[in-house]
Amino acid sequence: MSAAQSPGGGGTTVVACCQLRPQVGDATGNRARADTAIRRAAASGGSVVVLPELTTSGYSFTDAREAASLAEPVPGPSTEHWQELAAEFGVTIVAGVCEDGGDGSLFNAAVIVDRSGVLAAYRKVHLWDREKLVFTPGDRPPPVVDVGGRRVSVMVCYDVEFPEWVRLPALQGADLLCVPANWPRFPRPEAERPMEIVRVQASASVNRMYIAACDRVGMERGNDWVGGSVIVDADGWPLAGGYASPDVRVLVAECRLDEARNKSISPHNDVQADRRPELYAPEVLEGGAR
Amino acid sequence: MSAAQSPGGGGTTVVACCQLRPQVGDATGNRARADTAIRRAAASGGSVVVLPELTTSGYSFTDAREAASLAEPVPGPSTEHWQELAAEFGVTIVAGVCEDGGDGSLFNAAVIVDRSGVLAAYRKVHLWDREKLVFTPGDRPPPVVDVGGRRVSVMVCYDVEFPEWVRLPALQGADLLCVPANWPRFPRPEAERPMEIVRVQASASVNRMYIAACDRVGMERGNDWVGGSVIVDADGWPLAGGYASPDVRVLVAECRLDEARNKSISPHNDVQADRRPELYAPEVLEGGAR
Repeated sequence: MSAAQSPGGGGTTVVACCQLRPQVGDATGNRARADTAIRRAAASGGSVVVLPELTTSGYSFTDAREAASLAEPVPGPSTEHWQELAAEFGVTIVAGVCEDGGDGSLFNAAVIVDRSGVLAAYRKVHLWDREKLVFTPGDRPPPVVDVGGRRVSVMVCYDVEFPEWVRLPALQGADLLCVPANWPRFPRPEAERPMEIVRVQASASVNRMYIAACDRVGMERGNDWVGGSVIVDADGWPLAGGYASPDVRVLVAECRLDEARNKSISPHNDVQADRRPELYAPEVLEGGAR
Repeated sequence: MSAAQSPGGGGTTVVACCQLRPQVGDATGNRARADTAIRRAAASGGSVVVLPELTTSGYSFTDAREAASLAEPVPGPSTEHWQELAAEFGVTIVAGVCEDGGDGSLFNAAVIVDRSGVLAAYRKVHLWDREKLVFTPGDRPPPVVDVGGRRVSVMVCYDVEFPEWVRLPALQGADLLCVPANWPRFPRPEAERPMEIVRVQASASVNRMYIAACDRVGMERGNDWVGGSVIVDADGWPLAGGYASPDVRVLVAECRLDEARNKSISPHNDVQADRRPELYAPEVLEGGAR
Protein backbone atom coordinates (compact mmCIF):
# COMPACT_ATOMS: atom_id res chain seq x y z
CA MET A 1 0.00 0.00 0.00
CA SER A 2 1.56 3.28 -1.06
CA ALA A 3 1.60 6.34 1.16
CA ALA A 4 -0.98 7.94 -1.07
CA GLN A 5 -3.29 4.99 -0.48
CA SER A 6 -2.73 4.64 3.23
CA PRO A 7 -5.75 5.65 5.27
CA GLY A 8 -3.44 6.16 8.23
CA GLY A 9 -1.10 8.53 6.45
CA GLY A 10 -1.35 12.25 6.22
CA GLY A 11 -2.23 11.94 2.55
CA THR A 12 -5.25 10.71 0.72
CA THR A 13 -7.42 7.64 1.14
CA VAL A 14 -8.63 6.17 -2.12
CA VAL A 15 -12.32 5.36 -1.79
CA ALA A 16 -14.10 3.25 -4.40
CA CYS A 17 -17.76 2.58 -5.14
CA CYS A 18 -18.59 -0.54 -7.16
CA GLN A 19 -21.89 0.07 -8.95
CA LEU A 20 -23.03 -3.49 -9.69
CA ARG A 21 -25.85 -5.27 -11.51
CA PRO A 22 -27.01 -7.96 -9.07
CA GLN A 23 -29.84 -10.36 -9.86
CA VAL A 24 -32.12 -11.48 -7.08
CA GLY A 25 -31.57 -15.13 -6.20
CA ASP A 26 -28.23 -15.50 -7.97
CA ALA A 27 -25.94 -15.40 -4.93
CA THR A 28 -23.08 -17.14 -6.70
CA GLY A 29 -23.22 -14.85 -9.71
CA ASN A 30 -23.67 -11.76 -7.55
CA ARG A 31 -20.62 -12.65 -5.47
CA ALA A 32 -18.58 -13.19 -8.64
CA ARG A 33 -19.72 -9.80 -10.04
CA ALA A 34 -18.68 -8.16 -6.78
CA ASP A 35 -15.31 -9.96 -6.91
CA THR A 36 -14.57 -8.55 -10.34
CA ALA A 37 -15.40 -5.04 -9.20
CA ILE A 38 -13.38 -5.33 -5.98
CA ARG A 39 -10.36 -6.41 -8.05
CA ARG A 40 -10.83 -3.43 -10.35
CA ALA A 41 -11.19 -1.09 -7.38
CA ALA A 42 -8.04 -2.47 -5.77
CA ALA A 43 -6.14 -2.19 -9.06
CA SER A 44 -7.14 1.48 -9.15
CA GLY A 45 -5.62 1.98 -5.73
CA GLY A 46 -8.87 1.66 -3.80
CA SER A 47 -8.38 1.30 -0.08
CA VAL A 48 -12.00 1.47 1.15
CA VAL A 49 -14.27 -0.36 -1.31
CA VAL A 50 -18.04 0.13 -1.07
CA LEU A 51 -20.59 -2.25 -2.61
CA PRO A 52 -24.39 -1.86 -2.93
CA GLU A 53 -27.16 -2.77 -0.53
CA LEU A 54 -28.02 -6.50 -0.54
CA THR A 55 -25.03 -7.22 -2.77
CA THR A 56 -25.21 -11.01 -2.73
CA SER A 57 -28.96 -11.69 -2.43
CA GLY A 58 -30.32 -9.08 -4.83
CA TYR A 59 -33.21 -6.83 -3.83
CA SER A 60 -36.60 -7.60 -5.33
CA PHE A 61 -37.75 -10.52 -3.22
CA THR A 62 -41.17 -11.99 -3.93
CA ASP A 63 -41.76 -12.41 -0.22
CA ALA A 64 -40.10 -13.05 3.13
CA ARG A 65 -39.77 -16.74 2.34
CA GLU A 66 -37.60 -16.01 -0.69
CA ALA A 67 -35.55 -13.49 1.29
CA ALA A 68 -35.02 -16.09 4.03
CA SER A 69 -33.75 -18.56 1.45
CA LEU A 70 -31.09 -15.99 0.40
CA ALA A 71 -30.16 -14.84 3.90
CA GLU A 72 -26.94 -15.68 5.67
CA PRO A 73 -25.51 -15.10 9.12
CA VAL A 74 -23.03 -12.31 9.91
CA PRO A 75 -20.26 -13.41 10.02
CA GLY A 76 -21.09 -15.91 7.30
CA PRO A 77 -20.16 -17.06 3.82
CA SER A 78 -20.12 -13.61 2.20
CA THR A 79 -18.23 -11.84 4.97
CA GLU A 80 -15.70 -14.69 5.11
CA HIS A 81 -15.21 -14.44 1.37
CA TRP A 82 -14.77 -10.66 1.59
CA GLN A 83 -12.33 -11.12 4.45
CA GLU A 84 -10.18 -13.23 2.12
CA LEU A 85 -10.35 -10.59 -0.61
CA ALA A 86 -9.58 -7.87 1.93
CA ALA A 87 -6.45 -9.77 2.94
CA GLU A 88 -5.44 -10.46 -0.65
CA PHE A 89 -5.79 -6.85 -1.79
CA GLY A 90 -5.15 -4.94 1.44
CA VAL A 91 -8.55 -3.25 1.29
CA THR A 92 -11.50 -2.69 3.59
CA ILE A 93 -14.86 -3.76 2.12
CA VAL A 94 -18.22 -2.20 3.00
CA ALA A 95 -21.22 -4.09 1.65
CA GLY A 96 -24.89 -4.88 2.13
CA VAL A 97 -26.06 -8.39 3.01
CA CYS A 98 -29.38 -10.07 3.67
CA GLU A 99 -28.83 -11.16 7.27
CA ASP A 100 -30.37 -14.18 8.90
CA GLY A 101 -30.86 -13.11 12.52
CA GLY A 102 -30.96 -16.74 13.66
CA ASP A 103 -34.41 -16.61 15.27
CA GLY A 104 -36.46 -16.28 12.10
CA SER A 105 -35.80 -12.55 11.81
CA LEU A 106 -34.20 -11.04 8.71
CA PHE A 107 -32.23 -7.80 8.57
CA ASN A 108 -31.21 -5.54 5.72
CA ALA A 109 -27.66 -5.33 7.02
CA ALA A 110 -24.31 -3.89 6.04
CA VAL A 111 -20.84 -4.89 7.15
CA ILE A 112 -17.37 -3.40 7.28
CA VAL A 113 -14.84 -6.18 6.66
CA ASP A 114 -11.07 -6.18 6.61
CA ARG A 115 -8.39 -8.89 6.77
CA SER A 116 -9.23 -9.47 10.44
CA GLY A 117 -12.92 -10.13 9.79
CA VAL A 118 -16.12 -8.17 10.43
CA LEU A 119 -15.12 -4.86 12.01
CA ALA A 120 -18.72 -3.73 12.34
CA ALA A 121 -22.21 -4.80 11.35
CA TYR A 122 -25.26 -2.57 11.02
CA ARG A 123 -28.97 -3.30 10.53
CA LYS A 124 -31.00 -0.82 8.47
CA VAL A 125 -33.23 1.21 10.75
CA HIS A 126 -35.44 2.96 8.17
CA LEU A 127 -36.99 0.34 5.89
CA TRP A 128 -38.14 1.18 2.37
CA ASP A 129 -41.51 0.14 0.95
CA ARG A 130 -41.97 -3.65 0.79
CA GLU A 131 -38.84 -4.20 2.88
CA LYS A 132 -41.26 -3.66 5.77
CA LEU A 133 -42.94 -6.94 4.81
CA VAL A 134 -39.61 -8.81 4.88
CA PHE A 135 -37.16 -7.30 7.34
CA THR A 136 -37.10 -6.44 11.01
CA PRO A 137 -35.89 -2.84 11.44
CA GLY A 138 -32.64 -2.35 13.32
CA ASP A 139 -32.55 -0.34 16.50
CA ARG A 140 -28.87 0.47 16.90
CA PRO A 141 -27.02 3.57 15.66
CA PRO A 142 -24.53 3.40 12.79
CA PRO A 143 -21.21 2.02 14.04
CA VAL A 144 -18.01 4.04 13.67
CA VAL A 145 -14.80 2.03 13.36
CA ASP A 146 -11.14 2.80 12.95
CA VAL A 147 -9.75 1.95 9.51
CA GLY A 148 -6.05 2.66 9.48
CA GLY A 149 -6.42 5.82 11.52
CA ARG A 150 -9.56 7.08 9.78
CA ARG A 151 -13.05 6.69 11.21
CA VAL A 152 -15.51 4.96 8.94
CA SER A 153 -19.25 4.49 9.42
CA VAL A 154 -22.05 2.80 7.50
CA MET A 155 -25.80 3.04 7.01
CA VAL A 156 -28.10 1.72 4.30
CA CYS A 157 -29.97 3.52 1.50
CA TYR A 158 -33.19 5.15 2.86
CA ASP A 159 -31.43 5.70 6.24
CA VAL A 160 -29.50 8.57 4.64
CA GLU A 161 -32.74 10.48 4.00
CA PHE A 162 -33.05 11.09 7.75
CA PRO A 163 -30.64 13.90 8.61
CA GLU A 164 -30.92 13.10 12.30
CA TRP A 165 -29.52 9.67 11.52
CA VAL A 166 -26.62 10.97 9.46
CA ARG A 167 -25.81 13.35 12.29
CA LEU A 168 -25.12 10.49 14.72
CA PRO A 169 -21.96 9.08 13.12
CA ALA A 170 -20.77 12.61 12.39
CA LEU A 171 -21.05 13.43 16.09
CA GLN A 172 -19.17 10.21 16.82
CA GLY A 173 -16.31 11.52 14.71
CA ALA A 174 -16.84 9.65 11.44
CA ASP A 175 -14.63 10.97 8.65
CA LEU A 176 -16.30 8.85 5.97
CA LEU A 177 -19.85 7.53 5.87
CA CYS A 178 -20.39 4.61 3.48
CA VAL A 179 -23.91 4.05 2.17
CA PRO A 180 -24.65 0.79 0.34
CA ALA A 181 -27.85 1.62 -1.58
CA ASN A 182 -30.39 0.35 -4.08
CA TRP A 183 -32.00 3.63 -5.12
CA PRO A 184 -35.30 3.06 -6.93
CA ARG A 185 -35.67 5.27 -9.95
CA PHE A 186 -38.18 8.14 -9.74
CA PRO A 187 -39.11 10.72 -12.37
CA ARG A 188 -37.17 13.97 -12.19
CA PRO A 189 -37.02 17.21 -14.16
CA GLU A 190 -34.75 17.02 -17.17
CA ALA A 191 -31.17 18.15 -16.46
CA GLU A 192 -31.64 17.84 -12.71
CA ARG A 193 -29.27 15.73 -10.67
CA PRO A 194 -31.06 12.84 -8.93
CA MET A 195 -32.45 13.99 -5.57
CA GLU A 196 -30.81 10.98 -3.90
CA ILE A 197 -27.46 12.57 -4.74
CA VAL A 198 -28.60 16.06 -3.71
CA ARG A 199 -29.51 14.72 -0.29
CA VAL A 200 -26.11 13.04 0.06
CA GLN A 201 -24.37 16.29 -0.89
CA ALA A 202 -26.35 18.28 1.66
CA SER A 203 -25.73 15.73 4.41
CA ALA A 204 -21.99 15.75 3.75
CA SER A 205 -21.94 19.54 3.73
CA VAL A 206 -23.83 20.18 6.97
CA ASN A 207 -21.65 17.64 8.76
CA ARG A 208 -18.35 18.25 6.98
CA MET A 209 -18.05 14.48 6.49
CA TYR A 210 -17.18 12.52 3.35
CA ILE A 211 -19.93 10.25 2.04
CA ALA A 212 -19.54 7.37 -0.42
CA ALA A 213 -22.92 6.09 -1.62
CA CYS A 214 -22.83 2.97 -3.79
CA ASP A 215 -25.93 2.34 -5.90
CA ARG A 216 -26.84 -0.49 -8.27
CA VAL A 217 -28.18 -0.86 -11.82
CA GLY A 218 -30.02 -3.50 -13.83
CA MET A 219 -33.77 -4.03 -14.19
CA GLU A 220 -34.87 -6.60 -11.60
CA ARG A 221 -38.46 -7.92 -11.64
CA GLY A 222 -39.73 -4.60 -12.97
CA ASN A 223 -37.66 -2.44 -10.62
CA ASP A 224 -35.20 0.02 -12.11
CA TRP A 225 -32.57 2.06 -10.31
CA VAL A 226 -30.95 5.48 -10.33
CA GLY A 227 -27.40 4.19 -10.89
CA GLY A 228 -26.34 7.30 -9.01
CA SER A 229 -23.28 6.20 -7.07
CA VAL A 230 -21.30 9.16 -5.78
CA ILE A 231 -18.33 10.03 -3.59
CA VAL A 232 -18.63 13.52 -2.10
CA ASP A 233 -16.12 15.51 -0.08
CA ALA A 234 -16.66 17.27 3.25
CA ASP A 235 -18.02 20.33 1.42
CA GLY A 236 -20.59 18.17 -0.38
CA TRP A 237 -19.00 18.36 -3.85
CA PRO A 238 -18.85 15.17 -5.92
CA LEU A 239 -15.32 13.82 -6.41
CA ALA A 240 -16.57 10.90 -8.52
CA GLY A 241 -19.97 10.04 -9.95
CA GLY A 242 -22.82 12.34 -9.05
CA TYR A 243 -25.03 11.56 -12.04
CA ALA A 244 -27.32 8.74 -13.10
CA SER A 245 -25.80 5.99 -15.24
CA PRO A 246 -27.20 2.61 -16.25
CA ASP A 247 -23.69 1.16 -16.38
CA VAL A 248 -21.76 -1.18 -14.14
CA ARG A 249 -18.83 1.00 -13.08
CA VAL A 250 -16.17 1.46 -10.44
CA LEU A 251 -15.86 5.01 -9.13
CA VAL A 252 -12.59 5.97 -7.48
CA ALA A 253 -11.70 9.16 -5.62
CA GLU A 254 -8.70 10.30 -3.63
CA CYS A 255 -10.15 11.63 -0.40
CA ARG A 256 -8.39 13.85 2.10
CA LEU A 257 -10.32 12.40 5.00
CA ASP A 258 -8.42 14.55 7.49
CA GLU A 259 -10.45 17.48 6.17
CA ALA A 260 -13.49 15.99 7.90
CA ARG A 261 -11.80 16.66 11.23
CA ASN A 262 -12.01 20.39 10.59
CA LYS A 263 -15.58 21.47 11.32
CA SER A 264 -14.83 25.18 11.05
CA ILE A 265 -16.62 27.07 8.26
CA SER A 266 -15.89 30.67 9.30
CA PRO A 267 -13.79 32.40 11.95
CA HIS A 268 -16.74 32.08 14.33
CA ASN A 269 -18.54 28.95 13.11
CA ASP A 270 -18.20 25.21 13.61
CA VAL A 271 -20.89 22.93 12.18
CA GLN A 272 -20.95 20.83 15.34
CA ALA A 273 -20.34 23.43 18.06
CA ASP A 274 -23.03 25.68 16.52
CA ARG A 275 -25.72 23.07 17.09
CA ARG A 276 -28.37 23.79 19.76
CA PRO A 277 -29.38 20.22 20.66
CA GLU A 278 -31.31 21.34 23.71
CA LEU A 279 -33.77 22.95 21.29
CA TYR A 280 -33.99 20.13 18.73
CA ALA A 281 -35.93 17.25 20.21
CA PRO A 282 -39.24 18.52 21.57
CA GLU A 283 -40.96 15.20 20.97
CA VAL A 284 -38.37 13.35 22.99
CA LEU A 285 -38.47 15.94 25.77
CA GLU A 286 -42.25 16.08 25.79
CA GLY A 287 -42.58 12.34 25.69
CA GLY A 288 -39.89 11.53 28.20
CA ALA A 289 -37.82 14.01 30.07
CA ARG A 290 -40.31 16.72 30.95
CA MET B 1 -57.34 37.92 -5.08
CA SER B 2 -58.13 35.36 -7.74
CA ALA B 3 -58.80 31.74 -6.95
CA ALA B 4 -55.45 30.82 -8.41
CA GLN B 5 -53.76 33.18 -5.98
CA SER B 6 -55.74 32.29 -2.92
CA PRO B 7 -53.70 30.40 -0.37
CA GLY B 8 -56.94 29.11 1.09
CA GLY B 9 -58.25 27.68 -2.16
CA GLY B 10 -57.64 24.26 -3.55
CA GLY B 11 -55.43 25.79 -6.22
CA THR B 12 -52.03 27.33 -6.18
CA THR B 13 -50.42 29.91 -3.94
CA VAL B 14 -48.14 32.31 -5.75
CA VAL B 15 -44.95 32.69 -3.73
CA ALA B 16 -42.43 35.42 -4.55
CA CYS B 17 -38.83 36.03 -3.51
CA CYS B 18 -37.50 39.59 -3.86
CA GLN B 19 -33.74 39.38 -4.28
CA LEU B 20 -32.64 42.89 -3.27
CA ARG B 21 -29.48 44.97 -3.12
CA PRO B 22 -29.57 46.58 0.34
CA GLN B 23 -26.85 48.90 1.59
CA VAL B 24 -25.92 48.85 5.25
CA GLY B 25 -27.05 52.02 7.03
CA ASP B 26 -29.43 53.22 4.32
CA ALA B 27 -32.71 52.25 5.97
CA THR B 28 -34.77 54.69 3.91
CA GLY B 29 -33.27 53.54 0.62
CA ASN B 30 -33.50 49.89 1.61
CA ARG B 31 -37.18 50.24 2.48
CA ALA B 32 -37.83 51.95 -0.86
CA ARG B 33 -35.99 49.18 -2.75
CA ALA B 34 -38.11 46.61 -0.93
CA ASP B 35 -41.28 48.58 -1.77
CA THR B 36 -40.50 48.47 -5.46
CA ALA B 37 -39.94 44.73 -5.35
CA ILE B 38 -43.07 44.06 -3.30
CA ARG B 39 -45.11 45.99 -5.89
CA ARG B 40 -43.56 43.95 -8.68
CA ALA B 41 -44.23 40.72 -6.78
CA ALA B 42 -47.85 41.69 -6.19
CA ALA B 43 -48.26 42.68 -9.84
CA SER B 44 -47.05 39.18 -10.77
CA GLY B 45 -49.76 37.66 -8.61
CA GLY B 46 -47.57 37.09 -5.57
CA SER B 47 -49.51 36.21 -2.46
CA VAL B 48 -46.68 35.38 -0.04
CA VAL B 49 -43.76 37.75 -0.62
CA VAL B 50 -40.36 36.94 0.91
CA LEU B 51 -37.59 39.52 1.40
CA PRO B 52 -33.96 38.97 2.49
CA GLU B 53 -32.44 38.82 5.95
CA LEU B 54 -31.92 42.27 7.54
CA THR B 55 -33.83 43.92 4.69
CA THR B 56 -33.92 47.44 6.08
CA SER B 57 -30.68 47.70 8.05
CA GLY B 58 -28.30 45.97 5.65
CA TYR B 59 -25.89 43.32 6.89
CA SER B 60 -22.24 44.28 7.20
CA PHE B 61 -22.23 46.23 10.45
CA THR B 62 -18.92 47.60 11.69
CA ASP B 63 -19.87 46.70 15.23
CA ALA B 64 -22.76 46.28 17.66
CA ARG B 65 -23.03 50.04 18.09
CA GLU B 66 -23.77 50.54 14.42
CA ALA B 67 -26.25 47.67 14.45
CA ALA B 68 -27.99 49.20 17.44
CA SER B 69 -28.31 52.48 15.58
CA LEU B 70 -30.14 50.64 12.77
CA ALA B 71 -32.30 48.43 15.00
CA GLU B 72 -36.00 48.85 15.51
CA PRO B 73 -38.63 47.25 17.70
CA VAL B 74 -41.01 44.54 16.46
CA PRO B 75 -43.68 45.74 15.83
CA GLY B 76 -42.03 48.94 14.69
CA PRO B 77 -41.59 51.26 11.73
CA SER B 78 -40.74 48.57 9.17
CA THR B 79 -43.43 46.12 10.20
CA GLU B 80 -46.02 48.93 10.27
CA HIS B 81 -44.97 49.99 6.79
CA TRP B 82 -45.17 46.40 5.52
CA GLN B 83 -48.58 46.06 7.17
CA GLU B 84 -49.77 48.98 5.04
CA LEU B 85 -48.35 47.40 1.89
CA ALA B 86 -49.87 44.04 2.83
CA ALA B 87 -53.26 45.71 3.10
CA GLU B 88 -52.83 47.65 -0.15
CA PHE B 89 -51.79 44.61 -2.18
CA GLY B 90 -53.51 41.79 -0.35
CA VAL B 91 -50.22 40.00 0.32
CA THR B 92 -48.38 38.49 3.26
CA ILE B 93 -44.82 39.75 3.68
CA VAL B 94 -41.98 37.74 5.24
CA ALA B 95 -38.82 39.75 5.92
CA GLY B 96 -35.72 40.06 8.04
CA VAL B 97 -35.25 42.98 10.44
CA CYS B 98 -32.57 44.11 12.89
CA GLU B 99 -34.59 43.94 16.09
CA ASP B 100 -34.04 46.12 19.14
CA GLY B 101 -34.94 43.86 22.04
CA GLY B 102 -35.57 46.86 24.29
CA ASP B 103 -33.03 45.96 26.96
CA GLY B 104 -29.87 46.56 24.98
CA SER B 105 -30.11 43.21 23.22
CA LEU B 106 -30.24 42.96 19.43
CA PHE B 107 -31.75 40.10 17.42
CA ASN B 108 -31.39 39.01 13.82
CA ALA B 109 -35.14 38.64 13.45
CA ALA B 110 -37.73 37.85 10.81
CA VAL B 111 -41.42 38.67 10.72
CA ILE B 112 -44.54 37.47 8.96
CA VAL B 113 -46.79 40.48 8.38
CA ASP B 114 -50.24 40.78 6.84
CA ARG B 115 -52.94 43.47 6.83
CA SER B 116 -53.67 42.71 10.50
CA GLY B 117 -50.07 43.28 11.61
CA VAL B 118 -47.27 40.98 12.77
CA LEU B 119 -48.56 37.41 12.61
CA ALA B 120 -45.31 35.99 13.94
CA ALA B 121 -41.81 37.06 14.83
CA TYR B 122 -38.73 34.86 14.99
CA ARG B 123 -35.20 35.44 16.28
CA LYS B 124 -32.34 33.68 14.49
CA VAL B 125 -31.05 30.83 16.64
CA HIS B 126 -27.88 29.91 14.71
CA LEU B 127 -25.76 33.02 14.26
CA TRP B 128 -23.25 33.34 11.43
CA ASP B 129 -19.68 34.54 11.90
CA ARG B 130 -19.46 38.12 13.23
CA GLU B 131 -23.18 38.16 13.96
CA LYS B 132 -22.08 36.51 17.20
CA LEU B 133 -20.40 39.79 18.15
CA VAL B 134 -23.60 41.75 17.52
CA PHE B 135 -26.71 39.69 18.14
CA THR B 136 -28.16 37.65 20.97
CA PRO B 137 -29.17 34.22 19.65
CA GLY B 138 -32.85 33.35 19.79
CA ASP B 139 -34.06 30.40 21.80
CA ARG B 140 -37.52 29.74 20.40
CA PRO B 141 -38.50 27.40 17.56
CA PRO B 142 -39.67 28.72 14.19
CA PRO B 143 -43.30 29.84 14.42
CA VAL B 144 -45.93 28.29 12.16
CA VAL B 145 -48.90 30.51 11.32
CA ASP B 146 -52.03 30.19 9.26
CA VAL B 147 -52.00 32.24 6.07
CA GLY B 148 -55.33 31.85 4.32
CA GLY B 149 -55.56 28.17 5.16
CA ARG B 150 -51.91 27.36 4.48
CA ARG B 151 -49.31 26.98 7.21
CA VAL B 152 -46.28 29.20 6.83
CA SER B 153 -43.09 29.21 8.87
CA VAL B 154 -39.91 31.25 8.91
CA MET B 155 -36.24 30.91 9.89
CA VAL B 156 -33.16 32.92 8.93
CA CYS B 157 -30.21 32.02 6.67
CA TYR B 158 -27.70 29.80 8.54
CA ASP B 159 -30.60 28.29 10.54
CA VAL B 160 -31.53 26.27 7.45
CA GLU B 161 -28.16 24.45 7.55
CA PHE B 162 -29.32 22.59 10.65
CA PRO B 163 -31.65 19.84 9.47
CA GLU B 164 -32.92 19.31 13.01
CA TRP B 165 -34.15 22.90 12.96
CA VAL B 166 -35.89 22.59 9.60
CA ARG B 167 -37.59 19.46 10.89
CA LEU B 168 -39.38 21.36 13.67
CA PRO B 169 -41.75 23.47 11.55
CA ALA B 170 -42.29 20.49 9.24
CA LEU B 171 -43.43 18.43 12.24
CA GLN B 172 -45.68 21.35 13.22
CA GLY B 173 -47.37 21.04 9.84
CA ALA B 174 -45.73 23.86 7.89
CA ASP B 175 -46.55 23.73 4.18
CA LEU B 176 -44.11 26.50 3.26
CA LEU B 177 -40.92 27.52 5.05
CA CYS B 178 -39.70 31.03 4.21
CA VAL B 179 -35.99 31.74 4.67
CA PRO B 180 -34.82 35.36 4.50
CA ALA B 181 -31.08 35.01 3.84
CA ASN B 182 -27.84 36.85 3.12
CA TRP B 183 -25.73 34.01 1.78
CA PRO B 184 -22.03 34.92 1.73
CA ARG B 185 -20.34 33.83 -1.46
CA PHE B 186 -17.92 30.90 -1.26
CA PRO B 187 -15.84 29.30 -4.01
CA ARG B 188 -17.47 26.33 -5.73
CA PRO B 189 -16.59 23.97 -8.57
CA GLU B 190 -17.49 25.33 -11.97
CA ALA B 191 -20.96 24.29 -13.17
CA GLU B 192 -22.03 23.28 -9.68
CA ARG B 193 -25.16 24.75 -8.14
CA PRO B 194 -24.42 26.74 -4.97
CA MET B 195 -24.39 24.42 -1.95
CA GLU B 196 -26.77 26.81 -0.15
CA ILE B 197 -29.39 25.83 -2.72
CA VAL B 198 -28.50 22.13 -2.58
CA ARG B 199 -29.11 22.17 1.17
CA VAL B 200 -32.50 23.86 0.68
CA GLN B 201 -33.47 21.25 -1.92
CA ALA B 202 -32.53 18.39 0.37
CA SER B 203 -34.37 19.90 3.33
CA ALA B 204 -37.54 20.37 1.29
CA SER B 205 -37.29 16.84 -0.03
CA VAL B 206 -36.79 15.01 3.26
CA ASN B 207 -39.69 16.93 4.80
CA ARG B 208 -41.96 17.20 1.76
CA MET B 209 -42.32 20.92 2.50
CA TYR B 210 -42.00 23.89 0.14
CA ILE B 211 -39.13 26.26 0.89
CA ALA B 212 -38.74 29.83 -0.39
CA ALA B 213 -35.25 31.18 0.35
CA CYS B 214 -34.70 34.85 -0.48
CA ASP B 215 -31.09 35.92 -0.86
CA ARG B 216 -29.51 39.34 -1.55
CA VAL B 217 -26.90 40.76 -3.94
CA GLY B 218 -24.60 43.80 -4.04
CA MET B 219 -21.08 44.14 -2.68
CA GLU B 220 -21.27 45.59 0.83
CA ARG B 221 -18.07 46.58 2.66
CA GLY B 222 -16.15 43.82 0.91
CA ASN B 223 -18.81 41.15 1.37
CA ASP B 224 -20.29 39.52 -1.70
CA TRP B 225 -23.28 37.19 -1.89
CA VAL B 226 -24.50 34.12 -3.72
CA GLY B 227 -27.62 35.77 -5.16
CA GLY B 228 -29.11 32.28 -5.01
CA SER B 229 -32.77 32.89 -4.21
CA VAL B 230 -34.87 29.82 -4.89
CA ILE B 231 -38.39 28.49 -4.49
CA VAL B 232 -38.47 24.69 -4.28
CA ASP B 233 -41.41 22.31 -4.21
CA ALA B 234 -42.11 19.50 -1.77
CA ASP B 235 -39.92 17.14 -3.81
CA GLY B 236 -37.01 19.60 -3.61
CA TRP B 237 -37.09 20.72 -7.27
CA PRO B 238 -36.63 24.42 -8.01
CA LEU B 239 -39.76 26.09 -9.37
CA ALA B 240 -38.00 29.46 -9.69
CA GLY B 241 -34.38 30.50 -9.27
CA GLY B 242 -31.95 27.84 -8.17
CA TYR B 243 -28.82 29.42 -9.58
CA ALA B 244 -26.50 32.26 -8.62
CA SER B 245 -27.25 35.67 -10.12
CA PRO B 246 -25.81 39.09 -9.29
CA ASP B 247 -29.07 40.73 -10.29
CA VAL B 248 -31.88 42.32 -8.35
CA ARG B 249 -34.83 40.14 -9.34
CA VAL B 250 -38.28 38.99 -8.30
CA LEU B 251 -38.82 35.24 -8.50
CA VAL B 252 -42.41 34.03 -8.71
CA ALA B 253 -43.72 30.46 -8.54
CA GLU B 254 -47.17 28.94 -8.41
CA CYS B 255 -47.02 26.50 -5.53
CA ARG B 256 -49.48 23.69 -4.85
CA LEU B 257 -48.94 23.93 -1.12
CA ASP B 258 -51.53 21.21 -0.47
CA GLU B 259 -48.92 18.75 -1.78
CA ALA B 260 -46.94 19.35 1.40
CA ARG B 261 -49.75 17.73 3.35
CA ASN B 262 -49.04 14.42 1.62
CA LYS B 263 -45.98 12.90 3.28
CA SER B 264 -46.29 9.57 1.48
CA ILE B 265 -43.42 8.62 -0.83
CA SER B 266 -44.23 4.94 -1.45
CA PRO B 267 -47.08 2.57 -0.60
CA HIS B 268 -45.33 1.85 2.70
CA ASN B 269 -43.44 5.07 3.43
CA ASP B 270 -44.21 8.43 4.99
CA VAL B 271 -41.36 10.86 5.62
CA GLN B 272 -42.70 11.75 9.05
CA ALA B 273 -44.14 8.43 10.24
CA ASP B 274 -40.91 6.66 9.23
CA ARG B 275 -38.86 8.71 11.67
CA ARG B 276 -37.43 6.95 14.75
CA PRO B 277 -37.11 9.92 17.13
CA GLU B 278 -36.46 7.68 20.12
CA LEU B 279 -33.14 6.82 18.48
CA TYR B 280 -32.15 10.33 17.33
CA ALA B 281 -31.17 12.38 20.34
CA PRO B 282 -28.58 10.52 22.37
CA GLU B 283 -27.02 13.71 23.68
CA VAL B 284 -30.34 14.94 24.99
CA LEU B 285 -31.17 11.57 26.50
CA GLU B 286 -27.69 11.14 27.97
CA GLY B 287 -27.66 14.66 29.31
CA GLY B 288 -31.15 14.72 30.67
CA ALA B 289 -33.63 11.91 30.63
CA ARG B 290 -31.51 8.85 31.29
